[in-house]
Amino acid sequence: MSSTYGQMIKLSIFGQSHGAAIGMTLDGVPAGLSVDLDELQRFLKRRAPGQNDFSTPRKEDDAPEFLSGLLDGYTCGAPITAIIKNTNTRSVDYKNLMDCPRPGHADYTAQVKYGGYQDLSGGGHFSGRLTAPLCIAGGLCKQWLDAQGIQIGAHIANIAGISDTPFFPVSPQLAQVGVDFPVISKEAGAIMRRAIQDAKADCDSVGGIVECAVTGLPVGLGEPMFGGMEGRIAQMVYGIPAVKGVEFGAGFGTAKLRGSQNNDPYIIEDGIVKTQTNHAGGILGGITNGMPLILRAAFKPTPSISRPQTSVSLGHMEQKELIVKGRHDPCIVPRAVPVVEAAVAIAIYDAFLEWKARR
Amino acid sequence: MSSTYGQMIKLSIFGQSHGAAIGMTLDGVPAGLSVDLDELQRFLKRRAPGQNDFSTPRKEDDAPEFLSGLLDGYTCGAPITAIIKNTNTRSVDYKNLMDCPRPGHADYTAQVKYGGYQDLSGGGHFSGRLTAPLCIAGGLCKQWLDAQGIQIGAHIANIAGISDTPFFPVSPQLAQVGVDFPVISKEAGAIMRRAIQDAKADCDSVGGIVECAVTGLPVGLGEPMFGGMEGRIAQMVYGIPAVKGVEFGAGFGTAKLRGSQNNDPYIIEDGIVKTQTNHAGGILGGITNGMPLILRAAFKPTPSISRPQTSVSLGHMEQKELIVKGRHDPCIVPRAVPVVEAAVAIAIYDAFLEWKARR
Amino acid sequence: MSSTYGQMIKLSIFGQSHGAAIGMTLDGVPAGLSVDLDELQRFLKRRAPGQNDFSTPRKEDDAPEFLSGLLDGYTCGAPITAIIKNTNTRSVDYKNLMDCPRPGHADYTAQVKYGGYQDLSGGGHFSGRLTAPLCIAGGLCKQWLDAQGIQIGAHIANIAGISDTPFFPVSPQLAQVGVDFPVISKEAGAIMRRAIQDAKADCDSVGGIVECAVTGLPVGLGEPMFGGMEGRIAQMVYGIPAVKGVEFGAGFGTAKLRGSQNNDPYIIEDGIVKTQTNHAGGILGGITNGMPLILRAAFKPTPSISRPQTSVSLGHMEQKELIVKGRHDPCIVPRAVPVVEAAVAIAIYDAFLEWKARR
Amino acid sequence: MSSTYGQMIKLSIFGQSHGAAIGMTLDGVPAGLSVDLDELQRFLKRRAPGQNDFSTPRKEDDAPEFLSGLLDGYTCGAPITAIIKNTNTRSVDYKNLMDCPRPGHADYTAQVKYGGYQDLSGGGHFSGRLTAPLCIAGGLCKQWLDAQGIQIGAHIANIAGISDTPFFPVSPQLAQVGVDFPVISKEAGAIMRRAIQDAKADCDSVGGIVECAVTGLPVGLGEPMFGGMEGRIAQMVYGIPAVKGVEFGAGFGTAKLRGSQNNDPYIIEDGIVKTQTNHAGGILGGITNGMPLILRAAFKPTPSISRPQTSVSLGHMEQKELIVKGRHDPCIVPRAVPVVEAAVAIAIYDAFLEWKARR
Repeated sequence: MSSTYGQMIKLSIFGQSHGAAIGMTLDGVPAGLSVDLDELQRFLKRRAPGQNDFSTPRKEDDAPEFLSGLLDGYTCGAPITAIIKNTNTRSVDYKNLMDCPRPGHADYTAQVKYGGYQDLSGGGHFSGRLTAPLCIAGGLCKQWLDAQGIQIGAHIANIAGISDTPFFPVSPQLAQVGVDFPVISKEAGAIMRRAIQDAKADCDSVGGIVECAVTGLPVGLGEPMFGGMEGRIAQMVYGIPAVKGVEFGAGFGTAKLRGSQNNDPYIIEDGIVKTQTNHAGGILGGITNGMPLILRAAFKPTPSISRPQTSVSLGHMEQKELIVKGRHDPCIVPRAVPVVEAAVAIAIYDAFLEWKARR
Repeated sequence: MSSTYGQMIKLSIFGQSHGAAIGMTLDGVPAGLSVDLDELQRFLKRRAPGQNDFSTPRKEDDAPEFLSGLLDGYTCGAPITAIIKNTNTRSVDYKNLMDCPRPGHADYTAQVKYGGYQDLSGGGHFSGRLTAPLCIAGGLCKQWLDAQGIQIGAHIANIAGISDTPFFPVSPQLAQVGVDFPVISKEAGAIMRRAIQDAKADCDSVGGIVECAVTGLPVGLGEPMFGGMEGRIAQMVYGIPAVKGVEFGAGFGTAKLRGSQNNDPYIIEDGIVKTQTNHAGGILGGITNGMPLILRAAFKPTPSISRPQTSVSLGHMEQKELIVKGRHDPCIVPRAVPVVEAAVAIAIYDAFLEWKARR
Repeated sequence: MSSTYGQMIKLSIFGQSHGAAIGMTLDGVPAGLSVDLDELQRFLKRRAPGQNDFSTPRKEDDAPEFLSGLLDGYTCGAPITAIIKNTNTRSVDYKNLMDCPRPGHADYTAQVKYGGYQDLSGGGHFSGRLTAPLCIAGGLCKQWLDAQGIQIGAHIANIAGISDTPFFPVSPQLAQVGVDFPVISKEAGAIMRRAIQDAKADCDSVGGIVECAVTGLPVGLGEPMFGGMEGRIAQMVYGIPAVKGVEFGAGFGTAKLRGSQNNDPYIIEDGIVKTQTNHAGGILGGITNGMPLILRAAFKPTPSISRPQTSVSLGHMEQKELIVKGRHDPCIVPRAVPVVEAAVAIAIYDAFLEWKARR
Repeated sequence: MSSTYGQMIKLSIFGQSHGAAIGMTLDGVPAGLSVDLDELQRFLKRRAPGQNDFSTPRKEDDAPEFLSGLLDGYTCGAPITAIIKNTNTRSVDYKNLMDCPRPGHADYTAQVKYGGYQDLSGGGHFSGRLTAPLCIAGGLCKQWLDAQGIQIGAHIANIAGISDTPFFPVSPQLAQVGVDFPVISKEAGAIMRRAIQDAKADCDSVGGIVECAVTGLPVGLGEPMFGGMEGRIAQMVYGIPAVKGVEFGAGFGTAKLRGSQNNDPYIIEDGIVKTQTNHAGGILGGITNGMPLILRAAFKPTPSISRPQTSVSLGHMEQKELIVKGRHDPCIVPRAVPVVEAAVAIAIYDAFLEWKARR
C-alpha cells in the first residue's frame, strides 16, 4: 500500500516537499489516449499556491516534466511518469520539529514510525505539496473521462461554517462554479473570504468542506463490497492530507431520514431509467446507477498556525511552547477543490477500466 | 477488488443471501494465534437477527462451520475458511424484482451490471446477510488484537436524529455500552427504540450513526497517502451495505473549527506523549498517534419498507407501483454495531501486520 | 500473497489434506458465463487418484459442491466458491513428522515457519490434494476460454528420462493426446509406464515433465515486464507442488541456439501474420503474438518413498532413520497433466480479462 | 500489474529506451536503512554496456539521480525514486519497424497491442535498457540483504552450449566468480568469449544461462502456493527481457531422477539442521529451508542480428526482407548476470519483509 493506489491502474506518488523533485507514475493506462498538456497546466494552476491574497505567497512553479509514457500527444502504453523539480533548497526551519512536534501535523507519528530518519523539511512526504503530482495523475484521468462524456466538478461547500449553494443532486450546476474562488454563490463566497481573512488576522486557520459531482457515468461501475465506488473513492480522497470525513449522497444526513424519504423513486425520462431524487449520490450497492455521483470531503483547518502552541520536547520529555515559523495558507479548502476532483477522477477511471474488463 | 480486501491478509467474502452457504476465507494470518470459538459465537450473536422486538423475526442460525485454517484452537498458518449454511430455500418473493427494482436497493444496478444473471433472491450477494461472514473475520481479528492489548468497541451514536452520549475522544467509555441495545445513555436508548417502533408502525424505517473507538494502539500503524488508516478503514467500512458516510475524530465538524481549536496539544502523561484533546481521532498523517482511534459511520434507513413505492417496469419501460413483501428490520443500526467493530478490526489487524514488517 | 492469485480475478485456495474440506473462491468473474458441471467433473476426474495401477489407491471422491456464484448454469457475478469435503479422518500416521521431517517435503520448513502449529496431517495445506480446488478454478476458466476459441491441452513430455513426441510448436497436436495415459506416442507411453512400475517395485519414485499448449489466443495478451505472460503463468504453475522448472518455447534450449536460428521469421498465411517457427512459444516481450503458447513444467519425483531415508530428530537434534508410511503415487506426472492445464487456464483467463479492459 | 511488482514493496519501473529518462520507484521500504551510493554505482557498472570488446560500444552513462526517499545516506521511509536521463536523441533508425517487425522482438506484439501508438525507438519500454532501473532497485535490496547476512551472487553457467563450473549447490563458490567476465572457470570463459566473437563475425548472436545463488537465508521465507519463493522469484526474473526459462535446484534435471536420488537427506552440522545435498535449491513447499537458494535463467540469443531476416510489411501484408541496423550485443548474457542478481534481490527482500510481518 503506502503511496501506491489502484486496481487496473497503478498510481505511485513520490517525493518530499523539499527534496530534489516530486512526481508520479501512472501505470496501466491504455495506449492511444489523447493528452492536452495545456489543459493539464490550467488544471494544475487551480491548485498552485499564490493565486490569491490568503494563500501562501510561496511561489511554486508546478510545471510537470514528462519523463515517459507520452509520445506525440498520446499515451504510448508505457508507464507515464512526470516530475516537478523543487527549486526550494532544504530549509533549516524544520530542524527543531524532530524534537518538538507541531500539533495537528504528522511530525510526531513520523518521528516514532521512522525513528528520526524521516525527511521533516517542509513536511517531507506528508506535505500538501504532494497533491501536485496527484493532480497530474488526476488531471490526465479527467481528460480521458471527459472524452467518454464523464464530467467531474467540485466547489467549496463550506468554509468556517459558511455554506455555498449545494450542488443539485439530480443535475449539479457544474458550470456555475466560479473560477477564481470556486463557489456557486458569490455572496457566500465573499463571506467565506472574509472568514479566512479574519482567521489569518488572528494568526489562525479555518477548515471546510469540498463537494464534488460526477455526471455522465454509465450504470454499472464498481464491484460488490470492498470494490464498491464509495470505498474506492474514499480510499483515494483520504490520501489527500487533512481530509477527516467523506460522505456520499445524503451522507450523514441519511441518519435522520426515514426510508420513505431517503429511497429515490425510479422514473423514466427520455426513455432512460432515472431516480427522481438522488439521496444515494449515484451509487447503489457500491455500483453507479447512472445518476450524478455526489460526495463531500471534510478538511480540517490548516494545522500550521503562527500562534504559540502547546507541545513537548521529545528529547527532554517535558512541555514546551512551540512557535511555527514560515508562511502557510490560513485555509487550504479553495486549493483543495481541484485536488478532490483529481482524486475522484483517478478512482473513477480505475473503476471504468475494470468495468470494461467484465462487460 | 470486488469482495476481496487487504494488504497483508486477504479476506474473501462469498455467498448469496439464499444460496447454499455464505462464508469467508482469511488468508495470510500467522500461525499459532489462539481462537476462542465461544467468544466468537457471542460476538456473532450480537449481529444476528431476532434479538429484539423490532429486528426481523427471520431466524438465522449463524453458527460458523470452520473448514480450514484452525487446529486444536490455534491458527495453523493455512487460509482460514468458515461457512454458514443457509437453511432458507430459494424464495419466490423476489422474482418480480428483476422487472421492477426496489428503490434504495442494488436491484437496478445489479440488473444492468450483470445483465439479468444476478441472484436476486434475498438481495443475493448484496444482502446484509453477507455481514455475517464479515463478522466471522472481524471477530477473529478482534480476538488477536485484544491479545495485543488493542480493544475495539462501538455504540449507536444516533438513530433518527436522537443522539447517544458520544464517546469521550480521549478515553472512550467502552465498558458502559449496553449489551441488549448498544448505547451508553439508557434514556437516549429508550427514545431511539420508540422512534424505531414508530417508523415500524408507519411501515417505514429509520437510519442512524455508529461510533467506534479503538484503544491501546501503538504509535505508527498506517502508511502515507493511500495507505493511511483513514483510507484503509473507510474502504473496509464502506464494504458494509447501507453505509453512506465515514468520518474520523472531529470529522465533518472540523470544517467549522479554527486551527487553534482543532489542533490537539501535546502533553506528557505518565512518561508517555499524549494529546490533550483528540480531534484527530488518533490519526495524524494517516498514522496512528497512540490516542484512541475514533470514527463514525452513517447508515441510511433500511430501503425495504412495506409502503407502496414508485418504481418502473424495466420490461415495459413504464411507471409501476411496487409493494415490497417480506419482513425487514425497521432499523439496522443496532445490529450494525458489531459489524462496524468487525470491519475496523480487520483493517487494523491488516495494518498491524504491515507495521510489524517494517519495524 | 500466499494462497491468493490474480490481477482481475482473485483466486483463493483453502483447506488442508485431512481437514473438513478443501475448496476455492474465484472472485471477479463476469456474470452470464455458462458453466457445464458435467464437463467440469470429467476434467476433475483426470486429476483424481486411483485411475490406474500405479496411482495411489486412496479413493478421493472429488465432487465439488458449489456454495455460491452460480445460478441456473451461469455465473451470477458474485464470487464462486466450491468445496470438496474430506471423508478421511485425521490420520495418526503423521504425528511423528513434526519431530522427524520427511526429506523433499515441506515438513521441516513448515515446522520452522509455523512453529509447530501447522497441520501436518496428509501434508496439510502443502498437500498435492490442494490441486483439486485448483482444478475446479482452472476447469471453469478452461470452459470460458473455450467459448472464446482458446483451447488448452497438455501431455506428459517426459517421465524418468523417456520422452513423448513433443508438441509441434506451430500446430500442437492436442487431439492426439491419449485419455487414460496422456501421451501422444503410445510406444513412449508404454515405456514410461514400465519405468514407473520399476520405480514402484524399488519402493522409489520418478519425476517428469508436462508440456502444455494454448491455441487460438488473440495477439496482445499480457503486459510489459512483471505483467508478461511468462511471469504470470510461471507464478501460477509454481503454485503446483513439486514443480521445479518452467520454460517457454525453446526455453533452456535457446541457450545453445544462435539468433538466426532462434528468431521466428514472420510470414503471412491466409491473410494473417504468423511466424514460420515458434521458438518464442507464442510470447514476445511478454505479450502473446497469436502463435500457440507453449510451456513445459518440470516435476520432481514424489518425495514420499517407502525406502528408509536419512533424517533428523528435531527434538533430540540427532540423526534418525525415517520410514514413510502410507501409499503414495510413484509418479505424479500423469495426474499433473490436467493440473498444469488448470493453472495455465487461470493465468490466461486473468490476462484475457485484463486485456479487455485496455482495448 | 504491468511494470509494477511486489507484495510488501511496490517497485514501479518506467521509461522508454530513447525517452527523456528511465527510472524506478521503490515504495514500502523501511526507514533507516543505510545506502552506499558508490557500491551501487559499482554494481550498475557491471550491467553497463561498453565493458568489453563484444558488448555494444554505445556509451550509456548509467549514473542514477535520486529524486526522493534518501536523506543523508539513509532511507527516510518515503518512496525511493531514481532516474537515469537519456542523452540519446530520438533515433530515426526505428521508424520502419512499425511496418516491418523485427523477428524475436516485441515490435509486432506492441504494434497490435498499442495500435501504433507505442514508442518504438530503441525498443521503447521493452528495451533491455529498462534493466538499468531494475538494477538500481535490486542493487539497493542487495545492500539491505547483505546487512542481514544474506549474500547474492551469479555467474554465466552457459553460453552457446559451453558450460562454466556449476555452483556447488551446498556451498556456492560466490567469491570465485570473475569480475570482468563473470565465470568460475577461466578456461570455459575463454571458450565462451571465442564463441561470442565467432557469432559476431557471422553477424549473428548467441544465448546462454545465468546461475544465481543466495546464501545466508533464514528458514521460513515464502508463503504457500502462489506465494512460494519459486513463483515470486520467477515472476521477477521473467520481467527481464529475453528470459525464456527459470528453474530451481535440480530443475528440469529432476525429471530424470528417482525420489531416492532427488530427496535431500537431513543432517545436523554445527548444531544446525541442514541437507546433505541440495536438489531442492533451498526451497521446500515454496519456503526457504536455510540451504543456498539456487536458480538458473535461460536467455535467448539477442534477436537483433545484422543478417538479412524474413519479415513482413504490415501495411502491404506481404513478405519483406529486413536488415536490422544499429550495433547490438552479440550476447547479452555477461551483462545479464547482475540483472539476475538484482531481480532475485528484489524478490527476496520483498519476501523478507513479508516474513517479518508474520513472525
